[in-house]
Amino acid sequence: MLMSIFMVECNLNILFSCAGRRKYLIDYFKAEPLFNGRLIGTDMSRTAPALAACDAWYEVPSIYDESYLDTVLDICKKEAVTALISLNDMELPILAANEKRFSDIGVRLVLAESAAIELCSDKWATVQFGLEHNIPVPASYLTVDSALTAIANHEVSYPLIVKPRWGSASFGLYVINADHELAEAFSTCKSEFLASHLAKFAGSDDLVLIQEFIVGDEYGVDIFNDMQGKYHGVVCKKKLSMRSGETDKAVTVNDAPFSYYAQQIATNLKHKGNLDCDFLERDNKMYLLELNPRFGGGYPFTHEAGGNFVKALLLSLLGRDNEIAINYRVGETFAKCDTLVAAR
Amino acid sequence: MLMSIFMVECNLNILFSCAGRRKYLIDYFKAEPLFNGRLIGTDMSRTAPALAACDAWYEVPSIYDESYLDTVLDICKKEAVTALISLNDMELPILAANEKRFSDIGVRLVLAESAAIELCSDKWATVQFGLEHNIPVPASYLTVDSALTAIANHEVSYPLIVKPRWGSASFGLYVINADHELAEAFSTCKSEFLASHLAKFAGSDDLVLIQEFIVGDEYGVDIFNDMQGKYHGVVCKKKLSMRSGETDKAVTVNDAPFSYYAQQIATNLKHKGNLDCDFLERDNKMYLLELNPRFGGGYPFTHEAGGNFVKALLLSLLGRDNEIAINYRVGETFAKCDTLVAAR
Repeated sequence: MLMSIFMVECNLNILFSCAGRRKYLIDYFKAEPLFNGRLIGTDMSRTAPALAACDAWYEVPSIYDESYLDTVLDICKKEAVTALISLNDMELPILAANEKRFSDIGVRLVLAESAAIELCSDKWATVQFGLEHNIPVPASYLTVDSALTAIANHEVSYPLIVKPRWGSASFGLYVINADHELAEAFSTCKSEFLASHLAKFAGSDDLVLIQEFIVGDEYGVDIFNDMQGKYHGVVCKKKLSMRSGETDKAVTVNDAPFSYYAQQIATNLKHKGNLDCDFLERDNKMYLLELNPRFGGGYPFTHEAGGNFVKALLLSLLGRDNEIAINYRVGETFAKCDTLVAAR
Repeated sequence: MLMSIFMVECNLNILFSCAGRRKYLIDYFKAEPLFNGRLIGTDMSRTAPALAACDAWYEVPSIYDESYLDTVLDICKKEAVTALISLNDMELPILAANEKRFSDIGVRLVLAESAAIELCSDKWATVQFGLEHNIPVPASYLTVDSALTAIANHEVSYPLIVKPRWGSASFGLYVINADHELAEAFSTCKSEFLASHLAKFAGSDDLVLIQEFIVGDEYGVDIFNDMQGKYHGVVCKKKLSMRSGETDKAVTVNDAPFSYYAQQIATNLKHKGNLDCDFLERDNKMYLLELNPRFGGGYPFTHEAGGNFVKALLLSLLGRDNEIAINYRVGETFAKCDTLVAAR
């Protein structure tokens, strides 16, 4: 009798919200010997490939629909969910703001806190974070005047990048090579941002970022914190090619150039689970470009090279943080390719 | 003794050139009980995922390098290749022009003839082909004047599409909503085309196509001809979403609206193996948009729904054309997702 109660308490049922294309992540959890529960997936579209790998799946409204949270909470109750992992940047702040409603029904959010999520989604705040914590960042400006002054003072030189302060790297990005192009790109970028679904992120009047364009190798870095927000390790990859805004080919590299920065990020942001970040290299110096406090499209390159954050997260969810060990093999190259799954 | 000679003659060793990301195609051949040979892959990059599935693989120069053909011919000799399948549009005319060098060493090209390849790569020729063979096509013009006259005469209305006459759908495409935008887009498109790697396709001074913009459901249609260029059947899919210029989600549909057009295309172009084409639907009428005489990114949706062109092609290569039967299940939805392979 005591035994069966113990087993019920140890069962992990994990909900992946906005599961989308990340079928590999569901497969990694399924393959983990530690895992003894059920995997539940939700998405706006029943044809999302990740749902095909889940033990149970639900087609849910848009994350912006007023019924969204209640729908997810109902699913959590029905499926006795114990932990929730979101795979959608836009959903993170919504979940974080409602953390108590989840904890009240026994669901732990594998998520950073609201302030950290906000910092990661705001590229200007990310730059300020880098400056405060001794992490190199590209020279950045919020106004055309301040950028032109910096150009005139030779503090920075063309090309510059103009991009929305919030949102993903591929949207509304302009490369600028001369003074006269700057103001027009800035105002076009601002209009496009305001017309987009990203507009709701705007927490300031300064909506557009002007940034030094660093040309060099790009690195993807996965940083693991346990469920107490304690840092355990980092896996570093050089990106070899991109496709649809995601890493398509990458090779694992030594973590030495990144380990101080990873510790700074992990101990200050205190995220839970994975935090995926991007660095650019120039003259042997690494510049922080972006922070994403969730499993990203580059995680499978970490996992396949032995950096098993899935096992680490399961250990933490089971209260066995002392057993977590993040290791990986350097010099392993992987490439993404397509497979087909039958839609639900 | 006689037996062993017979077996050697029946061995199919197939070379996939420019194998790229199409690992699924290699896997389909491997899984086919009929197949008794070896699969060889080539690519410019050793990290191409398809190479990971091949029995032998080679990193080769660019298809435009002067040593390219000799390199491929040497590989064919060394590996006793009996059939070659190219997965790169740009390579098709190069191979077709050198068909004899391959047949001289016993390699059969699974390929259309030069004239058909040229017709498929030239969107203006594709339109003329449609008009000649009773296949609806979008209204199309080679000059700004002829398009403006057609607009003035109400033969066509905005929006119009301006795009290069050769090349893939995603490159250098402009949507035009008013007379005054047309000339500028036309000249920008022309300059971009001439500055691109596509310029070598230009077989005429008319480099840019102005085309009616048909808004409606898009369909992918795979047409199978045997190695004698004889038509055997068609598989039709409605595209549900696209990603990086390829079909990402699709559902198989009844072939009735397409079967006459497929027969017209197959019997006139006499391609070998697969020909992948795109149609747009408006008011229950299907308009031919593009012809690609090769296995395309939409083929796995055909295969997974039972339209086994791989088996059909193997039967034809084995001289068993009379056993070919193209069938598929209608209403099956599939979605692409990512998996990782270790690079060679």
